[in-house]
Amino acid sequence: MAGDGTDPRALQYEQTLMYGRYTQDLGVFAKEEAARLREEAAFRRLVTERSRSFDLLEYDKSRCAKCRRYPYTLEAHPRDFLSVCTLHCQKFLISRVGEDWIFLILLGLVMALVSWVMDFCIALCLQAQKWMYGGLDSNLVLQYLAWVTYPVVLISFSAGFTHIVAPQAAGSGIPEMKTILRGVVLKEYLTLKTFVAKVIGLTCALGSGMPLGKEGPFVHIASLCAALLSKFMSLFGGIYENESRNIEMLAAACAVGVGCCFAAPIGGVLFSIEVTSTFFAVRNYWRGFFAATFSAFIFRVLAVWNRDEETITALFKTRFRLDFPFDLQELPAFAVIGIASGFGGALFVYLNRLIVQFIRKQKAINKFLMKKRLLYPALVTLLISTLTFPPGFGQFMAGQLTQKESLVTLLDNRTWAKQGIAEEFEYIGHAAAWKHPQANVFVTLVVFIVMKFWMSALATTIPVPCGAFMPVFVIGAAFGRLVGESMAAWFPEGIHSDGVVYSIVPGGYAVVGAAALSGAVTHTVSTAVIVFELTGQISHILPIMIAVILANAVAQSLQPSIYDSIIRIKKLPYLPELGWGHHEKYNIRVEDIMVRDVRYITLNCTYRDLHDVLLTERLKTLALVESTESMILLGSIERAQLQTLLSQQLGRPRRLEYLRQQAQNERKHMSVASTPSSEEGNHKVNQEVRFQISTEESSFSPTRTVSSKPLKPALKRHSVVERGPEIPSSQDSGIALKSLFCAHPESAAAENNNVENTVVPEHRKPKRVRISVVDQDVEDDMTMREIAEWEEQQLDEQVNFNNCKIDPAPFQLVERTSLHKTHTIFSLLGLDHAYVTSIGRLIGVVSLRELRKAIEGSVTVKGVKVRPPLASFRDSGTSSSDAEVTELHKLWNRHTNLTLPRDPQPSDSDEKSQ
Amino acid sequence: MAGDGTDPRALQYEQTLMYGRYTQDLGVFAKEEAARLREEAAFRRLVTERSRSFDLLEYDKSRCAKCRRYPYTLEAHPRDFLSVCTLHCQKFLISRVGEDWIFLILLGLVMALVSWVMDFCIALCLQAQKWMYGGLDSNLVLQYLAWVTYPVVLISFSAGFTHIVAPQAAGSGIPEMKTILRGVVLKEYLTLKTFVAKVIGLTCALGSGMPLGKEGPFVHIASLCAALLSKFMSLFGGIYENESRNIEMLAAACAVGVGCCFAAPIGGVLFSIEVTSTFFAVRNYWRGFFAATFSAFIFRVLAVWNRDEETITALFKTRFRLDFPFDLQELPAFAVIGIASGFGGALFVYLNRLIVQFIRKQKAINKFLMKKRLLYPALVTLLISTLTFPPGFGQFMAGQLTQKESLVTLLDNRTWAKQGIAEEFEYIGHAAAWKHPQANVFVTLVVFIVMKFWMSALATTIPVPCGAFMPVFVIGAAFGRLVGESMAAWFPEGIHSDGVVYSIVPGGYAVVGAAALSGAVTHTVSTAVIVFELTGQISHILPIMIAVILANAVAQSLQPSIYDSIIRIKKLPYLPELGWGHHEKYNIRVEDIMVRDVRYITLNCTYRDLHDVLLTERLKTLALVESTESMILLGSIERAQLQTLLSQQLGRPRRLEYLRQQAQNERKHMSVASTPSSEEGNHKVNQEVRFQISTEESSFSPTRTVSSKPLKPALKRHSVVERGPEIPSSQDSGIALKSLFCAHPESAAAENNNVENTVVPEHRKPKRVRISVVDQDVEDDMTMREIAEWEEQQLDEQVNFNNCKIDPAPFQLVERTSLHKTHTIFSLLGLDHAYVTSIGRLIGVVSLRELRKAIEGSVTVKGVKVRPPLASFRDSGTSSSDAEVTELHKLWNRHTNLTLPRDPQPSDSDEKSQ
Repeated sequence: MAGDGTDPRALQYEQTLMYGRYTQDLGVFAKEEAARLREEAAFRRLVTERSRSFDLLEYDKSRCAKCRRYPYTLEAHPRDFLSVCTLHCQKFLISRVGEDWIFLILLGLVMALVSWVMDFCIALCLQAQKWMYGGLDSNLVLQYLAWVTYPVVLISFSAGFTHIVAPQAAGSGIPEMKTILRGVVLKEYLTLKTFVAKVIGLTCALGSGMPLGKEGPFVHIASLCAALLSKFMSLFGGIYENESRNIEMLAAACAVGVGCCFAAPIGGVLFSIEVTSTFFAVRNYWRGFFAATFSAFIFRVLAVWNRDEETITALFKTRFRLDFPFDLQELPAFAVIGIASGFGGALFVYLNRLIVQFIRKQKAINKFLMKKRLLYPALVTLLISTLTFPPGFGQFMAGQLTQKESLVTLLDNRTWAKQGIAEEFEYIGHAAAWKHPQANVFVTLVVFIVMKFWMSALATTIPVPCGAFMPVFVIGAAFGRLVGESMAAWFPEGIHSDGVVYSIVPGGYAVVGAAALSGAVTHTVSTAVIVFELTGQISHILPIMIAVILANAVAQSLQPSIYDSIIRIKKLPYLPELGWGHHEKYNIRVEDIMVRDVRYITLNCTYRDLHDVLLTERLKTLALVESTESMILLGSIERAQLQTLLSQQLGRPRRLEYLRQQAQNERKHMSVASTPSSEEGNHKVNQEVRFQISTEESSFSPTRTVSSKPLKPALKRHSVVERGPEIPSSQDSGIALKSLFCAHPESAAAENNNVENTVVPEHRKPKRVRISVVDQDVEDDMTMREIAEWEEQQLDEQVNFNNCKIDPAPFQLVERTSLHKTHTIFSLLGLDHAYVTSIGRLIGVVSLRELRKAIEGSVTVKGVKVRPPLASFRDSGTSSSDAEVTELHKLWNRHTNLTLPRDPQPSDSDEKSQ
Repeated sequence: MAGDGTDPRALQYEQTLMYGRYTQDLGVFAKEEAARLREEAAFRRLVTERSRSFDLLEYDKSRCAKCRRYPYTLEAHPRDFLSVCTLHCQKFLISRVGEDWIFLILLGLVMALVSWVMDFCIALCLQAQKWMYGGLDSNLVLQYLAWVTYPVVLISFSAGFTHIVAPQAAGSGIPEMKTILRGVVLKEYLTLKTFVAKVIGLTCALGSGMPLGKEGPFVHIASLCAALLSKFMSLFGGIYENESRNIEMLAAACAVGVGCCFAAPIGGVLFSIEVTSTFFAVRNYWRGFFAATFSAFIFRVLAVWNRDEETITALFKTRFRLDFPFDLQELPAFAVIGIASGFGGALFVYLNRLIVQFIRKQKAINKFLMKKRLLYPALVTLLISTLTFPPGFGQFMAGQLTQKESLVTLLDNRTWAKQGIAEEFEYIGHAAAWKHPQANVFVTLVVFIVMKFWMSALATTIPVPCGAFMPVFVIGAAFGRLVGESMAAWFPEGIHSDGVVYSIVPGGYAVVGAAALSGAVTHTVSTAVIVFELTGQISHILPIMIAVILANAVAQSLQPSIYDSIIRIKKLPYLPELGWGHHEKYNIRVEDIMVRDVRYITLNCTYRDLHDVLLTERLKTLALVESTESMILLGSIERAQLQTLLSQQLGRPRRLEYLRQQAQNERKHMSVASTPSSEEGNHKVNQEVRFQISTEESSFSPTRTVSSKPLKPALKRHSVVERGPEIPSSQDSGIALKSLFCAHPESAAAENNNVENTVVPEHRKPKRVRISVVDQDVEDDMTMREIAEWEEQQLDEQVNFNNCKIDPAPFQLVERTSLHKTHTIFSLLGLDHAYVTSIGRLIGVVSLRELRKAIEGSVTVKGVKVRPPLASFRDSGTSSSDAEVTELHKLWNRHTNLTLPRDPQPSDSDEKSQ
């Protein structure tokens, strides 16, 4: 049970370390963290409680204020009215603060500022590197050292800082946000520490000039911002503690993140929907648009105010001709870009995963890297910056250009190749970097694409905050440019045949390539929209859409998206998407995938049954049915609850109580008037309070109701230390308990490793039980044999579920629910299991695992087609309905024969006679 | 019961007639239609059955083919293999046809062709009018006659044709699609007839030059196309009969509709999501993009091949300057456009509804229009075309321009006002229409806006296929132009202060205005994207986004969207959106809105209870609980099922059977060996078959499972005529039944009017029962008193639910589920009611009506704030959990005391002793 309480955080910590697993001291850390977490939780609860009671007070008062028009119904004193009125006004003001639009505007504003300041700092960093490199042009060695040291230092600092402050900040953040929006709680991902680590880490990482992106981290930063803002606003009271509202705000924040990163509000909203949601509420769409537009607006206005630009325009503005953007006959070339990008995108995802897995698997490397945590980032940075050193190999791949400069030159609307061949084209500004005296522009482009491809895949494995979108985008643009330049060289006069010469615009190809490759890597279509907003031109809409769709079709059939790939690498809980076109899945029903052998407990079971079930079953929740005969599902109970029940029944305190009673009986027997009865009564009271279980979170439901917790009775508030449900220490626990909790130490360890099962959705979190142990006045002098005897006796008692928290309406499906529908329900409601019932009877259970298996059975994973899913053999549909009728009949018969309950003989004869 | 069977269609028919209610013969028509529908259904079922059995055969065979690798496990003859192999290949090919992408490509292709052909025809029609008008320029009267007669004839034809062929085709179609995608079945809306009526009606309506749009109808046409294509493809077998797939394809089709109408794939997808969905599956998004892009591509390629255009570009291409699209200081003007458009949009929706309601209310007008069905369209057309007559009033409002021409001129990038004042600007082409010798361009624009505003609101009430998007778009563009021209006149040198003169571009304002007004009317943000795609320029993205968002904010707080307004006018079932910012709704729980007084039936109830419940309750479905004491919810039963049960129990056949048995007993009593027993056995068999209820659709579930119906036993297949569950005729029915079915004739009529309750989701459709009446050999000679006696006796029997179809897992919520979550679940799963349970016990029910009430209580409807919703008084949260515990305890006690069932005394003493 202690494992249940502490693991989630520890595992979250481990999950962030997809690169290298440096932590040997995981166990120690986990324990410390768990202790801290428990303390924090206790404190938080205290605060919440207090504010809640205040809220309630206020609520009552505002109700009174509303009632003022009907003074006769009011029983309060009239002099209360004044204070009530002021409170009401105050509440009104506060409720205004609680309006969504204020929150969204604030969020947009803050994110725009963050984005702008970060961009500014990054630009400064990059300028500094250029300045150093440029200043040392006399000495090649010094130049090289400056070129290489600068990024190594920055990246090392970024990695170190991130590791020390908040290891969760490493990586993209989109996979985690996807998981969080699915309803899983990864709480450490939304703290101030993480925010600081992410912002500073990202600034340094991008300032180093490595091929890293800022998009993914920005989604995370925006979510962090929303969470923190939410917390801050909740100081003013209002709605900010509402769980479902916070989830909605997080969805909007994701849109803001992309929106203010690229000044692309529409693309931002769509991209964030595509990468983080399975089902999207259209009402959130509105929120996203609002916040993202505001954010993008402020972001661009800041640039204007800073005199960087004259007015608000696109970030990477292109100037392609409008009247004839492309010829219809160029479409095959665009389609080729799309298909090639599809393969390229899949390759990128595969390469990225391969690198991570390679480093993980190589024990020797891993061991070494574990000791020197910053070595891996430094080595990777050294390698990459050495290769891009402009006077060295970098001259063949435009090494001196930053990411932004490369992109601007690649989207240029002039053609290089035609003039490039004739060596007469005057490369203006940065475009000169693409020209090499010995090699023509094609060679430069090819080298750039190949080198940047593996560099980006490698760089994104560094444990610093970084995304993969922008590097991929640039590579795509280079690839598009390559195709475009080839086309321009092939058709120097353009393809159009009607007299007018419309030369080919390689920049358009670059735009198409960028959208296609980034779409393929992320499995999104909205990169097309992002491209329109980034370039400020929509004239190439059809080629871009075609290329993006083709790229997606290819990439989706080969590999998961980069984010899903990371989710799998990090072993976050996930539900695969239903692929499209796999229409056999429409025929799979719940009955084909469900686990029929459900472990359940009955309402009239004994503690022995409980014990047995807990011994054999490792599930988080168990079904509670009315009786074995009827199998009517009443609810579900968490494992922890049952363990508590059992330990209460068999625990030491109860045994001591038993001993005390026995002693008392003896004493009574010996001297009737020797003990004063008042003392005994005192003990009784103590006894009764002792095992009170806190009622908080009793209102949780599988459909994730708003967990506004009921006020706890005052009685319980003075319990100071709160402990998670713990494994009774060996001295404390009895024999049966010991067998239960210590029977499978290896399985507990397995649980630790099997992260998928352990990161539990919030509403499934183990409940805390408070056991305030009272000093004992009876000595525990039972022998082992006596204890065993006593326990045997206790185990035969019927379980009293009175104080047990039961989920009163676990999610139910019927046998014939399609896989499709099940997937929909699971992904929408964020379930992790659902019971399958038939007319109230429990007949099976489906968990995320079964669902995943069923879906992945037919979806291609890791490039290999797994064999088709268990095809259901449905020869005659009447059987199931017959079964239903029969079972119902049984139930009915049970009632007609109610005077003879637990009648063992089957009532088949009855059935036939009708 | 007959009412249940026939109403849906009749009511759908009535719903289409939102304008004028012409039908006096509704009752007769409804009966005819119902009869036809029943016949069709029987035929369809026969066909499906046959094909299904074939499918199964094939399935078995293909299984065999798969087994061929393991020949030893096969028991079939090897010579079967050849045929099996060919069948397998055939099946493979067919399964390819079933792939989504083939379907989507076909859909896109067909829709692009339809769109293009329609555009072509519309252009022809409009040209014809111009030609007539131009040819008669010698005589003003003749010219007027030609100008007026042409649209009147076309609109009258369109209205008449639509009315005769498929009245469902009238109107936009988006409201109906929204309803269908919510899961409600409006089957007549997706037939070939409707398709023909819609296409031809729309072509004529738009060809008349009235201010009507093609967008809404195109959504409907695309959906029709998808449904028909689906039907057609199902001839080849495969997946096309799957319900949930068809819904997904319909969602994609909506996107295609908008996409190929405007050649705007991205905007189309987004717009269709916003207007038709509440929750959107991201996997459908992909489908929509694919189909819409393909469709838009083909649509534009057709134009290129037809030599209309040189290459693929935007439909209404603009040529605004790219480098400095607008100044930051112009933003207030854009914001003003947005806010004004918001008010304008709300006014438009209000005006539209007002006109419909006015015509409905005026009894005299209504009566007259009912007789002359085509008079209303003709009159409206006459009025509008008279006012736009170019030499008449039309000269002040650019009357001679078609919608398309107006839009092109309004989006022009030159400034009229500056030169217009100086009278020196040379209006090129159509733009000349905006110039009037006496009035300046501002007057023309104002007149245009005002006149077109009411004309559009009026024209969209004509019962022809028409949308409101395009007219509103044009009005918005004109308004934007007006503001732009004013700005240009105010700042002739532009606002920018840094030396360079950037003059103001009124065309940009027109674009902003168009997006804002259409966004306000439809309550969508995606009009912005549509505008980008329509104009081919995205440079004004920020002004457009700001204006659209402001317009939406204003319009949404004043009026429902035009589509929601029509849904309410037509009384289609709907679920209002949760407004944003109304955060008090986060605190409403199911327990605040649920109906606590649930009518239920118990498993061991008598027919009398059933009878009483049916008498007092008018709900479609009733809850089935285990017993009154436990209240454990077992499932729900449809009203029709219960009525069948009751009529079986009390019906004439059973009475005759009783008489026959009595007679036999008497005969046996009189002469033991006189009747041969074989005959009697014969009768017995007949008797048993007689009331067999078909098992089809027994597999339905509230979560809308795939309804692949089980094979029916061969026994039932030879019942030729199938009748809906009918009211037993007076001769047939007994006294109790009569009282049941005839007790509330007025309430049945009320049900007819209350459409909301009658249009049932598909899985709630009343089931058909087959009663094959066998010739009777016993005379019904019971007196009324005897019948009453017999019935009393029958009513006291316990109900046998064996043959009754029970929904085994109706949707359950818990008391503390938030309104928010409930709304989510209802809108996602398309529920119309859900039971509220607590640990298996039924404690309440929530239907769409309660939900609607709770939401609209705080959302503004019809411009008036309704009073806030029932605020729940939640003083102490412990009460509910206490109650839970107590109830559970009761349940538990019931089990411990199981030897004394139905023990009346409460077991409180037990409870306290623990």
